[in-house]
Amino acid sequence: MVKDGKMSLALLALVNGHHSAGWRNTASDTDTATDIDYFTYLAQRAERAKFDLFFIADTPGARIDHLDAYSRGPNYMNCLEPTTLLSALARGTERIGLGGTASTSFYEPFNLARLFASLDHISHGRAAWNVVTSSNDHAARAFGHAKLPPHAERYARAKEFVEIVRALWDTYEDDAIRFDKATGEYFDPAKFHPIDHEGAFFKVRGALNIARPPQGQPVIIQAGASNAGRELAAETADLVFNSDDTFEEAKAYYDDVRARVARFGRDPSTLKVLAGFAPVWGESKWEAEDKHRTLQELVTPMVGKQRVGQDLEADLSGLDPDQPVPLDIIPASANQHTRYFEQLVHMIKHERLTLRQLWQRYERGNKRVLGTAKDIADVMEEWFAGKACDGFMVICPQLPVGIEEFADHVVPELQRRGLYREDYSGTTLRDHLGLARPQSRYARTAEPAMG
Amino acid sequence: MVKDGKMSLALLALVNGHHSAGWRNTASDTDTATDIDYFTYLAQRAERAKFDLFFIADTPGARIDHLDAYSRGPNYMNCLEPTTLLSALARGTERIGLGGTASTSFYEPFNLARLFASLDHISHGRAAWNVVTSSNDHAARAFGHAKLPPHAERYARAKEFVEIVRALWDTYEDDAIRFDKATGEYFDPAKFHPIDHEGAFFKVRGALNIARPPQGQPVIIQAGASNAGRELAAETADLVFNSDDTFEEAKAYYDDVRARVARFGRDPSTLKVLAGFAPVWGESKWEAEDKHRTLQELVTPMVGKQRVGQDLEADLSGLDPDQPVPLDIIPASANQHTRYFEQLVHMIKHERLTLRQLWQRYERGNKRVLGTAKDIADVMEEWFAGKACDGFMVICPQLPVGIEEFADHVVPELQRRGLYREDYSGTTLRDHLGLARPQSRYARTAEPAMG
Repeated sequence: MVKDGKMSLALLALVNGHHSAGWRNTASDTDTATDIDYFTYLAQRAERAKFDLFFIADTPGARIDHLDAYSRGPNYMNCLEPTTLLSALARGTERIGLGGTASTSFYEPFNLARLFASLDHISHGRAAWNVVTSSNDHAARAFGHAKLPPHAERYARAKEFVEIVRALWDTYEDDAIRFDKATGEYFDPAKFHPIDHEGAFFKVRGALNIARPPQGQPVIIQAGASNAGRELAAETADLVFNSDDTFEEAKAYYDDVRARVARFGRDPSTLKVLAGFAPVWGESKWEAEDKHRTLQELVTPMVGKQRVGQDLEADLSGLDPDQPVPLDIIPASANQHTRYFEQLVHMIKHERLTLRQLWQRYERGNKRVLGTAKDIADVMEEWFAGKACDGFMVICPQLPVGIEEFADHVVPELQRRGLYREDYSGTTLRDHLGLARPQSRYARTAEPAMG
Repeated sequence: MVKDGKMSLALLALVNGHHSAGWRNTASDTDTATDIDYFTYLAQRAERAKFDLFFIADTPGARIDHLDAYSRGPNYMNCLEPTTLLSALARGTERIGLGGTASTSFYEPFNLARLFASLDHISHGRAAWNVVTSSNDHAARAFGHAKLPPHAERYARAKEFVEIVRALWDTYEDDAIRFDKATGEYFDPAKFHPIDHEGAFFKVRGALNIARPPQGQPVIIQAGASNAGRELAAETADLVFNSDDTFEEAKAYYDDVRARVARFGRDPSTLKVLAGFAPVWGESKWEAEDKHRTLQELVTPMVGKQRVGQDLEADLSGLDPDQPVPLDIIPASANQHTRYFEQLVHMIKHERLTLRQLWQRYERGNKRVLGTAKDIADVMEEWFAGKACDGFMVICPQLPVGIEEFADHVVPELQRRGLYREDYSGTTLRDHLGLARPQSRYARTAEPAMG
């Protein structure tokens, strides 16, 4: 139950990796986007490397616009649904945590509570739910809305949604199921707690028809970077992802979010922070850079234009990739992501990059480290020892090779430095993360309820 | 693809069986309601017996009233969620179909389409969705409604819901995913089909973010006995369950539903009918009757009173189980299930049974056969050869013993008679059922679309 002072590691399991051209460089000659054996292999590989968590990102809906770009890769366009995928993976793995994204904007609390409670039982205590509010209108339209509600409303709904889910997970107390064959008492009605919730967004009167999950409550993940997102994480999450690029930013985030946790009356150490981190391993730094360059050169022009165009807030589709971006099509200021916009404008104005050079150079968020096991471990040690995070969300540009190389080269280096576990010491995801099992809010003991 | 002229078999996998006292008579000393290894064993046992389908019934919500009775057993009160459970079972089995119930009243079409499409990919073409509209107000209250919408409205919503789900399953054509690493074309946008649906209940504009399921469309199951239910089944289902008690009733149902299928312009043989059937096997008829009596004697008085009282539409909770039911507490006529009500009134008035005898004798629906393998196979042969059904939903009063005995004794008898397959001849559930794989509605061929 007590964390061993080591860093935590999670693997972001996008099918062929995070890089848009990952699938073009894979050894496989057939698509693995919906191949359960492939995902089982990835999860087993991460488990052999003693990862805390295998993580499935998700968005509820395919893009239906810009298909010239979005048809150029599997990510978010062709993917297994997270809770069913993770339930299947629970049967091919034994220890690694299994986390997936589900949106509070497009689910009912009751259904979502059941899916993750069920996953927690099936996996014997390894489930995690990444709470997102969704940020794309294309998802909203698949659920009958013209567009997403405003940010503040989405987060207010998310907060209420999480409260309901957590209350439903506590329907049965831990010892409610008696299974007394002699008397015929299957469960004790006094330890069964329906809820009667009426809030701004939901009215839920009922009880979850599943015993309390093995973890008490499945792990709650959050990734919001906004003020509302940080508040939600500080109040409700067990684990938070951040995607800052520099040590200083990550450190500031870490300190900020832990201070917020304390303001909610929680022990700051009960919220773990994983920094997004994109390692590219090579026998030498030059080999790592070569690998990265190979991927960058495989970016399809339509994808490159779409990706840069989105953050530059300009339509680049008609431009020649091998000419600089004309300054007159760039808007005066950003409407969406100011930081990404400014990075791009700087590259265009001051470095006079061509459009192709731009999409090969520019990457949003998530610190990338190209180099040897030592180079990569150095950065991880700096961030972890410097208390900029409690561990890392490993975002491999390419899979499966990324996790294979990371597991075979970087993990042993981290272990040699004493930064990372040699083996699992517990069986549940909460055990791996060093998080206590929450008591039921109805438990009749001297200790205060933590749920 | 062509059905072999044999009967189909499905197993209703309620944790310790359909009988309310099944769990009290099990060999296990611990609860298996949320034990994935236990369910894997059940599914493997049914698969070794070459069953078409392993089926999980469900209701979205625990009862919160009458807990004195509902706390006396696990069924529907403590259960894994069907799609996550079936995804896990897909990894412990290879051939058997995997079907589960999900309600059109409490899901969004997009989420449900994804869950079952994902299950179909994970299981390599073995998924089935049992479309229900729910019939209990306690579920409605868990989803913010005071009570369920009227029957006709629920069925109208179900019809629209199924149409949307089926359209979403056809988002990608079968050959849409190109995986052309050389050119960077992952899928062909011309073979990707968003929908723009606007109906009485749903507005869905979008596309499913998963490749077309291996079965083209997962199998659609329906169990509605009402006129609206039969119409929905005839129009949309691949498989229908019925729960008639007698050969004549089942035969009438079979003929009726096939005539309805034809009226929708479908080949009647494309809707398979499974009759609910509760076998209790014994080396002799007396042994089978003994087994059944043992179970009946284990019915908890609270459960017996609640079950009889529900159909008698009277509060029996204060009565002495060993006295006859006083005639003056019985209403003049039934409000809910006329047939069940009249069966009970007959037993009370003409047989003068005590309350305990009543709950031990009375059973709702689902033909029960107590006897040897020959006795059981005789009834199955009569119904199947007499075209009262295409096969059976085997509803074991007790599990796991019910499937063990059925597999070891009844299945060989059916095989000896040439009524049942010796082995699977295909790999998908549609193969087992003898149902063609539906073409995409967008397929550009000379054949008419079947989706």
